[in-house]
Amino acid sequence: MSKQLLLLAGDFVEDYEIMVPFQALQAFGYTVHAVCPGKQKGQTVATAIHDFEGDQTYSEKRGHNFALNASFDQIRAEDYAGLIIPGGRAPEYLRLDAQVIAIVQHFFQADKPVAAICHGAQLLAAAKVLEGRTCSAYPACRPEVELAHGRYAEIAIDAAYTDGKLVTAPAWPAHPAWIAQFVAVLGARVSL
Amino acid sequence: MSKQLLLLAGDFVEDYEIMVPFQALQAFGYTVHAVCPGKQKGQTVATAIHDFEGDQTYSEKRGHNFALNASFDQIRAEDYAGLIIPGGRAPEYLRLDAQVIAIVQHFFQADKPVAAICHGAQLLAAAKVLEGRTCSAYPACRPEVELAHGRYAEIAIDAAYTDGKLVTAPAWPAHPAWIAQFVAVLGARVSL
Amino acid sequence: MSKQLLLLAGDFVEDYEIMVPFQALQAFGYTVHAVCPGKQKGQTVATAIHDFEGDQTYSEKRGHNFALNASFDQIRAEDYAGLIIPGGRAPEYLRLDAQVIAIVQHFFQADKPVAAICHGAQLLAAAKVLEGRTCSAYPACRPEVELAHGRYAEIAIDAAYTDGKLVTAPAWPAHPAWIAQFVAVLGARVSL
Amino acid sequence: MSKQLLLLAGDFVEDYEIMVPFQALQAFGYTVHAVCPGKQKGQTVATAIHDFEGDQTYSEKRGHNFALNASFDQIRAEDYAGLIIPGGRAPEYLRLDAQVIAIVQHFFQADKPVAAICHGAQLLAAAKVLEGRTCSAYPACRPEVELAHGRYAEIAIDAAYTDGKLVTAPAWPAHPAWIAQFVAVLGARVSL
Amino acid sequence: MSKQLLLLAGDFVEDYEIMVPFQALQAFGYTVHAVCPGKQKGQTVATAIHDFEGDQTYSEKRGHNFALNASFDQIRAEDYAGLIIPGGRAPEYLRLDAQVIAIVQHFFQADKPVAAICHGAQLLAAAKVLEGRTCSAYPACRPEVELAHGRYAEIAIDAAYTDGKLVTAPAWPAHPAWIAQFVAVLGARVSL
Amino acid sequence: MSKQLLLLAGDFVEDYEIMVPFQALQAFGYTVHAVCPGKQKGQTVATAIHDFEGDQTYSEKRGHNFALNASFDQIRAEDYAGLIIPGGRAPEYLRLDAQVIAIVQHFFQADKPVAAICHGAQLLAAAKVLEGRTCSAYPACRPEVELAHGRYAEIAIDAAYTDGKLVTAPAWPAHPAWIAQFVAVLGARVSL
Repeated sequence: MSKQLLLLAGDFVEDYEIMVPFQALQAFGYTVHAVCPGKQKGQTVATAIHDFEGDQTYSEKRGHNFALNASFDQIRAEDYAGLIIPGGRAPEYLRLDAQVIAIVQHFFQADKPVAAICHGAQLLAAAKVLEGRTCSAYPACRPEVELAHGRYAEIAIDAAYTDGKLVTAPAWPAHPAWIAQFVAVLGARVSL
Repeated sequence: MSKQLLLLAGDFVEDYEIMVPFQALQAFGYTVHAVCPGKQKGQTVATAIHDFEGDQTYSEKRGHNFALNASFDQIRAEDYAGLIIPGGRAPEYLRLDAQVIAIVQHFFQADKPVAAICHGAQLLAAAKVLEGRTCSAYPACRPEVELAHGRYAEIAIDAAYTDGKLVTAPAWPAHPAWIAQFVAVLGARVSL
Repeated sequence: MSKQLLLLAGDFVEDYEIMVPFQALQAFGYTVHAVCPGKQKGQTVATAIHDFEGDQTYSEKRGHNFALNASFDQIRAEDYAGLIIPGGRAPEYLRLDAQVIAIVQHFFQADKPVAAICHGAQLLAAAKVLEGRTCSAYPACRPEVELAHGRYAEIAIDAAYTDGKLVTAPAWPAHPAWIAQFVAVLGARVSL
Repeated sequence: MSKQLLLLAGDFVEDYEIMVPFQALQAFGYTVHAVCPGKQKGQTVATAIHDFEGDQTYSEKRGHNFALNASFDQIRAEDYAGLIIPGGRAPEYLRLDAQVIAIVQHFFQADKPVAAICHGAQLLAAAKVLEGRTCSAYPACRPEVELAHGRYAEIAIDAAYTDGKLVTAPAWPAHPAWIAQFVAVLGARVSL
Repeated sequence: MSKQLLLLAGDFVEDYEIMVPFQALQAFGYTVHAVCPGKQKGQTVATAIHDFEGDQTYSEKRGHNFALNASFDQIRAEDYAGLIIPGGRAPEYLRLDAQVIAIVQHFFQADKPVAAICHGAQLLAAAKVLEGRTCSAYPACRPEVELAHGRYAEIAIDAAYTDGKLVTAPAWPAHPAWIAQFVAVLGARVSL
Repeated sequence: MSKQLLLLAGDFVEDYEIMVPFQALQAFGYTVHAVCPGKQKGQTVATAIHDFEGDQTYSEKRGHNFALNASFDQIRAEDYAGLIIPGGRAPEYLRLDAQVIAIVQHFFQADKPVAAICHGAQLLAAAKVLEGRTCSAYPACRPEVELAHGRYAEIAIDAAYTDGKLVTAPAWPAHPAWIAQFVAVLGARVSL
């Protein structure tokens, strides 16, 4: 199986949640292709800074422009060993795209590793792949996980949860655990 | 029945979507109480400006601070003739609040008028009141409406949809139609 | 007389002060045409968020882009039953436009209803229509009202003042009273 | 006569229009005291960046915090050889302050040099000192100059106008001419 | 040797350049302590978004608040196997701190791995550890590298350079190569 | 000798540090030409607001767009009597430009007056003109001054330092002293 991973990006993806897995997984040695429907390699997606600054929910500021390194309409899900779904405000609208849904479903049907974080669970719910599975998600997305017949894992904000090949986490503070569990599911071994 | 209406607010509610119905309905002659869990009369919620500026989904900027005119823990749903649920990013987290869910369910159980717009549908879905009903919502929330066994009304961005006592619309361009249908459901008659 | 109303917009009009009357009056059943000199139907004006955040005067942030629904150079003042002048920073420069001044004067000469709020009084003062009239305005505009020989109405920030067909108010907290008085002057009757 | 100059500051004064004269005049050798009603030496006023970025009027962004170097309630107008009134959004509300108006009037009654720029003319109009005088101002303030029975000087955006001891200019591009004319009126001689 | 790494943070560190190595190295299995002089564990540093948006140099926007997980005055350099120096605007002022300089020098004297990126080279130059070494840096910092008698490595923006135990790179696009070379120098082995 | 002065500008120059000397020196009577490599007369540089708002180093916000009044590739250093180097983030990248370095060196070789403030010292260090000279600079630039074999003058934040024809200062609060010393070195005499 290939060492290529696919990352589903969109405008206003959370800035950390796209760049940290994109770069960390490359540092491990994987090839990671970041794509967005309707955009080509070299184009950018706008990112959002989601942070907690004293309000009842996260604030949003404008982040970096993230440059895609592959073209959505030229990739084939079959060529990838695993899928990464960052959070932020991108999953909300990406779930309306039939090809995006088909890509998500491919990885579950093929029993390949999938890592989703934060609002990434919105894509899993819309793809109807959560039935019978336990996953974490941004806590405010719990109702969506449950409407989609998934079991919501109540874990710490910096923890991750692995159910079979599905690795999920509540938000970017969980990146270290989430990435470590994902590379483990992908079969990597690290000795320090 | 009283002419009092209840409005459910939260941080990062969309700026237009809270202020236009709040003030327009008062201009008609209704009393409108805007409340937020955990906040008192006179405190404010932060608002968000959601607009389309060329990206694949809406942008967000910081809006006005909206001053609440009633205290969440002092109101009783029974005292209100109708409920207003604005959109933005507030419904996402308000749906985790059991009292908010109970308030939403009260209005449906009592068959009282409810007006929800944009992401307000997230609260309806979480309250499990959509089964057997047709509603509009922000288009990207359609999967949530359908996961909650509601029927999604495909209507123009400036149109509203009335199903019984439930009046819904896709986003703030629909305010005129949405408010007009809501006051009609509330029994108002206007002659110009 | 027609039920059409005309709204004078410009860049950096206050965001609430243009959208709330624009949409609320449509919810009542009026047709409202929002126009700006030099701009066509479908183009936008930039809006400003004016709020109080602890300084000695209002702060300004960037608001929504407001889409005009009519073209300034294609409308005729004679076709409208009433005029709406929002505040913000637009009236300051709109008062330099001779056609804008002529439009304002038309409504007074024809004794048709005019609603002005906040800095909208700057347009009334420049059009020299305040002599012998009492009006409200943003408090810091009082000197302009008085230089134009108008009488300044000292009223609460959420109150409005009707003098004949002229309905004025200090700022957006007064929208409910201001709109209610304006539709009353326009001849509307509402029964809840 | 003293070489001390007084500068009237307020929140959202234009950033350039307060700092350039404040520092340039000190570079010439004058002592300049910047004061704001209700604030003490060492406190700051918020400043605004007014610029032209493609809209029909100036845009506003947040500028530096400007530190006052004297306390409004401890200065006496009699102690100063000249007065400086910057523009921006401060003059609009400062004109409501009776002491500010009295200070402005003192300099005219004593026939001492006064330099006003941009919206500074709003203070001159409110102080009723423009009758029989010719002044420049931000072009959109022309109606206020004329309502106050002043003559508006139509000059280039980077030019200044001296009428007796009054030196005025349209906006910050005129600082060099405006400051040069002001120090000339103050009696300074410079040889390069 | 311990698997603990030390990261030197400060206000306006670049947002990606602190979070990506901090989390990626934890995903590998290292413990990473992020500290800032004058701040305690749990306090935050402000971060900056440095991006290229069409100007001759990078733009800056406000990023996340990054929470420190250790207290500067309670750590000992001797306890760490390696040092990480992110870029942004923090190194510029951190280089004035004698303890920071001593920490940097400790790692070089002990011949322990050091990873510096972008403006991190400013700290290396100020610590006078570059003589006889070749390093990369943000290109605009080349004169500082050379004034400090280092050799500047001209490499691609997404490449990294290893000279003995020192691993450097021009900016955040190089994170994958930079982190991979750093963990290699630290002795890690990864099999995918 | 001509009364023309040259000012070296670049994107994200500090807003005050370019406009105050540019306009103040013109108010004295000098001609000042502001140029930027790669840009023509009439084009603009972006400016940065550097201020202290409670963090360990300065914050940055977006300032005015500053319009250049001469074209870099059409000026000759020989035609100018003095050189002005503002601070901010422009000197960092301008020091990579060989022509900029040559211009700086010309003024020192010709023993003509040079005024540099804040990060302007980065250009002096890169031009290797500080050996044997004492200068002020933004305090965080002290290591660069010393790496370039200059002596760093420890002076108050609002003071300036003259060493021969070189006039330097730590940051914009020092503008009055810095400009006064510079015009003195240029030979000006002012009588108030």
